[in-house]
Amino acid sequence: MGAGGWFITFEGIDGSGKSTQARRLAERLPGAVLTREPGGSAGAEEIRRLVLNGETGRWSPETELLLFTAARRDHLEKLIEPRLSEGRTVICDRFADSTRIYQGATRGDLRDKVDALHALMIGREPDLTFIIDMDPATALARGMAREGAESRFESFGLELQETVRAGFLALAAQFPERCVVIDGNRDADAVAEDIAARVTVET
Amino acid sequence: MGAGGWFITFEGIDGSGKSTQARRLAERLPGAVLTREPGGSAGAEEIRRLVLNGETGRWSPETELLLFTAARRDHLEKLIEPRLSEGRTVICDRFADSTRIYQGATRGDLRDKVDALHALMIGREPDLTFIIDMDPATALARGMAREGAESRFESFGLELQETVRAGFLALAAQFPERCVVIDGNRDADAVAEDIAARVTVET
Ligand SMILES: Nc1ncnc2c1ncn2[C@@H]1O[C@H](COP(=O)(O)OP(=O)(O)OP(=O)(O)O)[C@@H](O)[C@H]1O
Ligand SMILES: Nc1ncnc2c1ncn2[C@@H]1O[C@H](COP(=O)(O)OP(=O)(O)OP(=O)(O)O)[C@@H](O)[C@H]1O
Ligand SMILES: [Mg+2]
Ligand SMILES: [Mg+2]
Repeated sequence: MGAGGWFITFEGIDGSGKSTQARRLAERLPGAVLTREPGGSAGAEEIRRLVLNGETGRWSPETELLLFTAARRDHLEKLIEPRLSEGRTVICDRFADSTRIYQGATRGDLRDKVDALHALMIGREPDLTFIIDMDPATALARGMAREGAESRFESFGLELQETVRAGFLALAAQFPERCVVIDGNRDADAVAEDIAARVTVET
Repeated sequence: MGAGGWFITFEGIDGSGKSTQARRLAERLPGAVLTREPGGSAGAEEIRRLVLNGETGRWSPETELLLFTAARRDHLEKLIEPRLSEGRTVICDRFADSTRIYQGATRGDLRDKVDALHALMIGREPDLTFIIDMDPATALARGMAREGAESRFESFGLELQETVRAGFLALAAQFPERCVVIDGNRDADAVAEDIAARVTVET
């Protein structure tokens, strides 16, 4: 790893438990910094609001990709890299893999641009990525149980979630040195124990 | 040129007369659309406000470059390309060359990123670019005469303007097929006549 702390990310389909498990892991690791995307730094949050406010379809996929890359660059410069330099662990709920997979699922023709833009302007991969893999129907049921989450989940069909799931599994196969697939079809305690054990082994 | 209208841009140092001459040319060409950067479309103007508001130094040069590229992409998709497709002439006061030259003058190490990002996400060059070349001291004096312009001009030294001027001349040599250098050290009528004559010859 060289000097500096570990950069750990959580990825997976909607409702798979990323936020839950990112928080749980952060609670176990003294001094760990918990953050999330999109957003994560003051500037990135402002860009996020600009992207998400207003009518949908207001920004083209290409413009949105540039805006999210700008937000990620700000997050990386202002929060992630400074904390890693201090030797702290940084745990991030979603990162560049989410862009790769969601864009790939909705606009497959953009995947080359996504990768080229990442290489050019971000150029940082996590040291360790947990891909929480699970059945989309179960994840959907969990998500629906959350207050205020219904409309978002309804608009995002099961078929797309299956495509996203397959995308994350393909990514894990493409980057085996940093990706660990975690079975998310278990209760939150069991998943948390599994993840904690992997961190101990990997670090 | 193929089908579609002509895409004409104006470039040059601050106060060289770009806005004056872009407007004058638009008045001569029936149906021409006059626009400007940064900004030029509703989304691009919002991004511009995000970049320019708040403390200076709030965004790194890399993040700012991504934001301005997002604004340019929006401007291109929402205004420039649709109008060109209708067969109209589009006249733009500053475009990608300004990014190339100003970034090059202040952060020369970013020039490769500027070019790669343009090729990846914009990929459109003007059909004709007027580079208004003139003595920076005269341009500064003109700029100082404008109401409200003082503080901006004062903060931007003559030395940087000389670097920018040399940058634009180098660019004209690099892209001779689209760039025409115009002597801006003349009264506005003489410059406008010169430009109009070139458009007639070129189109
Ligand atoms: N292992 C689990 N078993 C049952 N419920 C869980 C489990 N993990 C998380 N949940 C619950 O499921 C819902 C979704 O979990 P969480 O918000 O962590 O998922 P997420 O992957 O971050 O979702 P999103 O993609 O929407 O951000 C929450 O209500 C959470 O409390
Ligand atoms: N040929 C000219 N001779 C004298 N004054 C001029 C001439 N052209 C423009 N001006 C005046 O000089 C000032 C700067 O001109 P203008 O705003 O067109 O330049 P610009 O290149 O667009 O500047 P900026 O880079 O600040 O946008 C204006 O007050 C304008 O009226
Ligand atoms: Mg979450
Ligand atoms: Mg101007």
